[in-house]
Amino acid sequence: MTGPADATFADGTRRRPPEVALYGLTPAVEQAILDAVDAGRPNQIRGLIRPLHPADVADLLSRLDVNRRRAAIEAIRTRFDPEILPYLDEAVREDVFEVMGTRDVAAALTELDSDDAVDLMTDLGEEDRHRLLEAVPAAESVVLEQGLTYPEYSAGRLMQREVVAVPTHWTVGQTIDFMRTEAELPENFQEIYVVSAGNRLDGVILLSRLLRSKRPVRVADIMATEPRSVPPATDQEEVAQMFRRYGLVSTPVVDENGRLLGRITVDDIVDVIDEEAEDDLLKLGGVSESDIASGLVETARARFVWLLVNLATAFVAASVIHMFEDTIEQVVALAVLAPIVASMGGNAGTQSLTVAVRALAMREIGRTNALRVIVKEGALGIINGALFGAIVGLVAYAWFGRPMLGVVIGLALILNLLAAGLAGMTIPLILERLGVDPAVASGVFLTTVTDVVGFFAFLGLATWLIL
Amino acid sequence: MTGPADATFADGTRRRPPEVALYGLTPAVEQAILDAVDAGRPNQIRGLIRPLHPADVADLLSRLDVNRRRAAIEAIRTRFDPEILPYLDEAVREDVFEVMGTRDVAAALTELDSDDAVDLMTDLGEEDRHRLLEAVPAAESVVLEQGLTYPEYSAGRLMQREVVAVPTHWTVGQTIDFMRTEAELPENFQEIYVVSAGNRLDGVILLSRLLRSKRPVRVADIMATEPRSVPPATDQEEVAQMFRRYGLVSTPVVDENGRLLGRITVDDIVDVIDEEAEDDLLKLGGVSESDIASGLVETARARFVWLLVNLATAFVAASVIHMFEDTIEQVVALAVLAPIVASMGGNAGTQSLTVAVRALAMREIGRTNALRVIVKEGALGIINGALFGAIVGLVAYAWFGRPMLGVVIGLALILNLLAAGLAGMTIPLILERLGVDPAVASGVFLTTVTDVVGFFAFLGLATWLIL
Repeated sequence: MTGPADATFADGTRRRPPEVALYGLTPAVEQAILDAVDAGRPNQIRGLIRPLHPADVADLLSRLDVNRRRAAIEAIRTRFDPEILPYLDEAVREDVFEVMGTRDVAAALTELDSDDAVDLMTDLGEEDRHRLLEAVPAAESVVLEQGLTYPEYSAGRLMQREVVAVPTHWTVGQTIDFMRTEAELPENFQEIYVVSAGNRLDGVILLSRLLRSKRPVRVADIMATEPRSVPPATDQEEVAQMFRRYGLVSTPVVDENGRLLGRITVDDIVDVIDEEAEDDLLKLGGVSESDIASGLVETARARFVWLLVNLATAFVAASVIHMFEDTIEQVVALAVLAPIVASMGGNAGTQSLTVAVRALAMREIGRTNALRVIVKEGALGIINGALFGAIVGLVAYAWFGRPMLGVVIGLALILNLLAAGLAGMTIPLILERLGVDPAVASGVFLTTVTDVVGFFAFLGLATWLIL
Repeated sequence: MTGPADATFADGTRRRPPEVALYGLTPAVEQAILDAVDAGRPNQIRGLIRPLHPADVADLLSRLDVNRRRAAIEAIRTRFDPEILPYLDEAVREDVFEVMGTRDVAAALTELDSDDAVDLMTDLGEEDRHRLLEAVPAAESVVLEQGLTYPEYSAGRLMQREVVAVPTHWTVGQTIDFMRTEAELPENFQEIYVVSAGNRLDGVILLSRLLRSKRPVRVADIMATEPRSVPPATDQEEVAQMFRRYGLVSTPVVDENGRLLGRITVDDIVDVIDEEAEDDLLKLGGVSESDIASGLVETARARFVWLLVNLATAFVAASVIHMFEDTIEQVVALAVLAPIVASMGGNAGTQSLTVAVRALAMREIGRTNALRVIVKEGALGIINGALFGAIVGLVAYAWFGRPMLGVVIGLALILNLLAAGLAGMTIPLILERLGVDPAVASGVFLTTVTDVVGFFAFLGLATWLIL
């Protein structure tokens, strides 16, 4: 059996891998399933997949290519574990839905927790969604439709309706007895909600607290009053920020009248944090979503759009150079050096931009410090601009033997790094204010600024000072 | 009182903010504290800060500029809540330590959970660490030093030693009675560990399960056997991956003999996930860590290094252009168009690179699919290269009226986008294999490839086909 790959530590060093396998899906199991798929042995595939955790099955499916994936789904189709569905990426999920068909998918949906079922419906097209809702039992479809009324990416969508709630006047003993006899409780919960008439949330008791209290004690006396809660319309990013900040494991969702609607648990928040981080990272890199499991044509189309936007930027930069063709004709060294000015500006600006986008996502920039961080980026631009202006100026002088060329490129670098710092910090702040996702659009604006300022300053100064 | 800023949803639209404030630190409170700091009223500062959650105080401190921050710390110094410390960024923490002095910091440390205290020691220099360990009571310093023996970024460092464990032969009733009478339990826990002789971990019982069982039932009969656990040397990224995949709330840490050492809770894992995501994002953007709260000189120095590395790349690209000076002198349009070829290659390569870095971080690329995703990126490069080759070729022809210029730039784009796709996917995979963090170094290699191939292909083809 092959061992897991060496663990790479965050500091870049490498240590011996742990001897214990953390996941059920070891490379050996994966290879065996692969072989069974290629040999066309559905019984063997089923046997190998059955002992795996649903999350591991989802992971396996996402790593197979499209044809093998369909063969594997076909093999486990009749005994498909619904719990696999919430773990699947959208692209893989579509394949699963296609192979399984509406009836089987509807049957699987009814076995999931309400939040997972609603989440699965979200990604579907209007038509598919209708077809599914019709195939689901009436009671289920009401819950699903209700869940879908909350805005996408809101607390209401993350919320699970299954909660354990007891009346304010109960004792610890009554609560424990209720839990021992009531069959229809969620499988796993960490807290009990205390509610008064009309399901109004009065307090929360952690199970560890309940367990440590004597039976005759009233729940009202041990509950945490004024519990942290969120309204259902809260953006999921805000909810994640609250979990992150206060180290929460779950939070109740409460409507405007203080009525308990459901609860959000930290495992869903971990997914939200991953999604939001992935979103920012990928958008800054010019891709709208992870396409590692998507088909070729679909991927090419998605990436094409971003490249087309960037092409427009590149033509703007080119037309700036075009303005100075006469100058370049006389001093060809300018064509050699101009990309250096633009590239340094682009890189310095990307540094500021990246810090700004992350700080905005983590709510580290607010009214009180916005101006200060902009001024700081400007100062950074001047400092590093002066340093690199000196370095590049000297190298350019040494390379081409023209002192004035060194002066021109030095000054151009100071100007461009100043522009880069200011633009890199200001553009995301402005976009955020305008309600546009700063991660997705900042890069294009920034490159336009650093290219135009870079080429214009360098070639303009050269025309003025050298010719 | 000012309301919270409008919530921006992840899809870029904007909705009414929720009426409920999710955080204790409202803009109004923040402004009041700011005013009190500026007016030099320590009593008022203390009064405003006291009702806040430690996480909110940490957030406030990180948003103040250095002078105000020190004034605020000075004001709350005598009644400083130790729980604030774990929430602070490294830069802010240093300020706090400086103002408070070794003795006060040592006193604060002893009141924290073992994992938080060890974490605080980690960022300190060797000298500061020694001084602190000497100021802490002997029993505490043993625990701290032991915690520090685990490698940084390992499960051992995240682990909390405070756990609730009961012997295998106990009943549910005995366990509940033990919890009711034992004073020294952790404040909050979701599971009970079942151990046999020598503290060997036999199983885990979720509190919700325990509560639902009758008193005479033996814990051995309701515990989950073969619980998921991690060895203390496991990289924190691996631990986070396990929590993420299986939706865990906590996990036991167990040594090679199966002995229970402690537990890792999901709130620490949320921090790890944030850190790792921030790490990848910032490194891809050319910054080593968030410097939003750092001083000017420190920030300038950190960013300088990355720009210097990029400068080397830029000079490599420039020297490729230098090789073709004679060609450019005859056809100046080449100087106008060359940056377009390089820039499109850089952007397309960054797309592949970003997808690769994220997929590696999420363990979505493995042995079974590595070759397939590389081939796919190559195919993407050819497809989008052909499309953009056609577009740019036609525009160049129209702009400069030279058909051959269009052919040359079209071919150069196909070649460069193919190189970009292959390099963007392969470079991170190779670096990961070599044990180098792909997020930090991939970008430089990629830009070198796309600049060199871009300029060389375009200017080389031009020299061959046009002159």
